[in-house]
Parts: sequence; structure tokens; C-alpha cells
Amino acid sequence: MSLKIGVIGAGNLATQLSFALQSAGYEIAQVFSRTERSAQTLGEKLQTKYTNQTSSLTNDADMYIVALSDSALSEVLPNIDFKNRLVVHCSGSLPLTVLRPFSKNTGVLYPLQTFSKSRNISFKNIPVFVESENLANRELLLQMASSISEKVQILDSEKRKSLHISAVLACNFVNHMYTLAAAYLQQNYIEFDVLHPLIRETAQKAIDMPPYRAQTGPAVRFDENIINDHLERLNDFPGLQELYNSISKSIFEFHQKKR
Amino acid sequence: MSLKIGVIGAGNLATQLSFALQSAGYEIAQVFSRTERSAQTLGEKLQTKYTNQTSSLTNDADMYIVALSDSALSEVLPNIDFKNRLVVHCSGSLPLTVLRPFSKNTGVLYPLQTFSKSRNISFKNIPVFVESENLANRELLLQMASSISEKVQILDSEKRKSLHISAVLACNFVNHMYTLAAAYLQQNYIEFDVLHPLIRETAQKAIDMPPYRAQTGPAVRFDENIINDHLERLNDFPGLQELYNSISKSIFEFHQKKR
Repeated sequence: MSLKIGVIGAGNLATQLSFALQSAGYEIAQVFSRTERSAQTLGEKLQTKYTNQTSSLTNDADMYIVALSDSALSEVLPNIDFKNRLVVHCSGSLPLTVLRPFSKNTGVLYPLQTFSKSRNISFKNIPVFVESENLANRELLLQMASSISEKVQILDSEKRKSLHISAVLACNFVNHMYTLAAAYLQQNYIEFDVLHPLIRETAQKAIDMPPYRAQTGPAVRFDENIINDHLERLNDFPGLQELYNSISKSIFEFHQKKR
Repeated sequence: MSLKIGVIGAGNLATQLSFALQSAGYEIAQVFSRTERSAQTLGEKLQTKYTNQTSSLTNDADMYIVALSDSALSEVLPNIDFKNRLVVHCSGSLPLTVLRPFSKNTGVLYPLQTFSKSRNISFKNIPVFVESENLANRELLLQMASSISEKVQILDSEKRKSLHISAVLACNFVNHMYTLAAAYLQQNYIEFDVLHPLIRETAQKAIDMPPYRAQTGPAVRFDENIINDHLERLNDFPGLQELYNSISKSIFEFHQKKR
């Protein structure tokens, strides 16, 4: 538990994961972010050191957790000499092997959740997926993950990528539907919170029964009158009309095939 | 409270609304469905009379609640003589005026929720929207709606339609994203329930903060590497590739504009 961690990144995931690990007794020795203000904000929240210079990165950490966007990762890591300490990334989409050029000891710790800096969240029920080629590193990561979550699994890079794609659908795309609904309601002077019970029930239904069976609405019934009427009314909302059409078609075609 | 109701329709909404009204003390005098088995199933559940013949519809009801799909509605209602009793539909998309040819007393009672026959649900927190041209009918509907829900409002046909469009986005389209995620995971031999915490948190986040601010993932960051990699992997899942592309574009464009 006296493991010292260097956290590389200060975004949504870096913030929430650092809090969780610190609460579980791990020492966050230093925070790095290319953005000085982000480094400072997270460093101060964690009451630990921070830097925005790769040259000032601590040599003293037992492991480094890289919680950067995939594009930032490939820009930042080549500038760091990790001295073969354990380097772990947290990305759903990147394979373990992207870390090979930077250290002999590598791993992945992927928490399957949507994180925001300002929204503190318990990791207890978040599934965390761990990968490492080296048995000792894997054990270390399993132990670390289990200290914050009750749902820890080993998963290889291929399956993690599939999981990540499904998460994009069930989270990012879902949230965009909420966003469009909110924008459309605002345009029509209706408060978004009228949808809260529907949003809750739609999510809960898909947890309690297969989402395929939970589908309702005009598209699955192929109620052309309603669909066409809605399309007409979406004329004044750029982009949404096309999206409404293609998702409705996808719903109809998916359910036709299953029948 | 001794009001006698004839329920026309025996689908998801008819089933759940009948239960709620019966529990609130209303008498469901008869259930009609064109499908004999559906009429029987709901009639027996409610321990009341049922028929699949419009000619056998009771003359004895004080009001008729029409909970049919919009296309069924236009086929069934012309065959019924309502003798100017109060006729109420439950559709988000149809205006009040569609009932004009069938009675002098008309109204709308629209519960904003997703219903399934097999999933009993409390109406207490479901927003219910009421409309009627006649003051007495409106009062009656307000009283009825308030007996099952704490969130009753008067809303005109135009605004109800806007609300319905937003509900299609936030419920039907959202559920289709869950469905596609489940199908994709199944194809990759991963259990869907690993997504449950993510689904819960995504919904709760959009309730606790504006969904626009809750957006995460590769599309909002415009992480082209990930997006292209995902698109490539979706090659073997017909239809999903195109949808992934257009929703990602929509996310990116929406957030670009807002910046």
C-alpha cells in the first residue's frame, strides 16, 4: 500500500481515478499535465506535487498511470524516460502494446464508466479491466483495482476494444440523444426535466429486460404517419432530421430481421 | 369516482393505464381490442368484460379511453357510435382534433413514459398531460390524471407533439443504442450486464447536469484515430458502421457550434 504513483494526465478520468486510489491508501506522488492549470488544479485537490514539464517528472514513483486521451498519449510518452518502471494506461481503445516502446513493464487498468472532473463517483460498482503480460505486474494491478472496485476482471486488448465500442453506443451516443432532446425542447420552450422520469425508466428497463424487448415507439411499429410528421417538424433543426431518419430506419430494420 | 370507463385498446399503454385507473378506484367497464386474445388477456387481468367487436361495445360507459396506435385509431373509431360521450386519446403525436368526427366531447390524457405489458409501473411520478376544449371535461381529466400522478399539467396539441419528438429521442433512440450495444457485445462473446453501471450513470448524469456538459468519448474530443478504428471494426456489423459515423459527426458538429 506504500506504492508511489505518478499520474500522467489531469482530465476527467485522471481526476476521478486519482481520488479513488488516494482514498484506497495509495500515494499519488505527482501529477503531470501539459496544461499548467489542469496540473495545478488536480495537484492541489490531491494535496500533492504537480508539473507541466516532462523533464520535471518524478523519478521516484513505483508506477506511472497514464490517463491521457489517445492522441495526447502518443505525443507525451516519447518525452519521458520511465526507467522500466511499471507504466499503465487506462484506455479502452488502445492495445497494451502501445506502451512497449516506453518500458519493459506495462499494463492496462480500464474502468468502464463515464467520468467528469466535477462529478465525484464511487468506483465500488464500476467494472475495472486489467491486462499485463507479466504475472507480478498483473497481480499488482488486480490488487490495486480490487482496492477500489468489487468488479475486477482480466481482459485482453481485443475484447477491451469491443467493450469500448459498446460503451460508445450505450453512453456517448445515448447522451447525445439526451442532448438533442434537451436542445429540441429548449427550442420549443419546454423544460428538459419533464423527461427525467422517462430517461430513468428507459435505462432501468434495459437493465431489467433485454433492450431488444423493451423497444417502443413509432419506429419499431413502423408508424409511417408519425415518422413523416416528425421528420417534417424537424425541418427547422439542422442535422437532426437526417439523424432521426437513419436511426428510425435502423430500429425498424433491426426488429424486422429479428422477427 | 363511480365513473365507468370503456378502454379501447389492449396494448402496452392500455394495459398499464387501466391498472392504474382501476387501482385509483375507477371502474373499467369493458375492454376492446381487435385482437381477441389481447382483449381477453387484459379483460381477465382486470376482471372485467371484454370484446373484439365494435358492435358489442358497451353503451354504458361515461367515457371512453382510446389507447391505440395512431394507425389503428383511424381504422377503429369510425365504426363506433360514442353518442357524444367523452372520448379521450392518449397519443403524444395526434392533435385533439382527430377525435372531432366521433364525439362532441373530446380530450387527451398523455402519460409521458415507455410502457410494456409485462412491466407494471407506478404512475405517481409520470408526467401526465391533459387537453380538452370543454372546461368540465378538462376538470374531469385533471381530476382523473391527478388520482394516478403527482405531475399533471395542461398542454396543447402543438407542445405535446414537440414533447413526443423529444421522447422519441430520449427513450426510443436511446433504447436502440442499448440494443445495438447488446447485439455487438453478444457478437463478441461479452455479457451485456457489464454495461449496467455505465447505463445507470449516463442516465443519472444527464438528470444531474445538462446533458451537453456530460458528453464524453472519442466523438466530442474528435479523436479521429479511435473513430476510424471503431468504424473499421464495425465493418462486420451491417448498418451499424453508417450509424456510428453519422452520430459521431452529429456529436462533433453540435459541440463545435456551441463552443
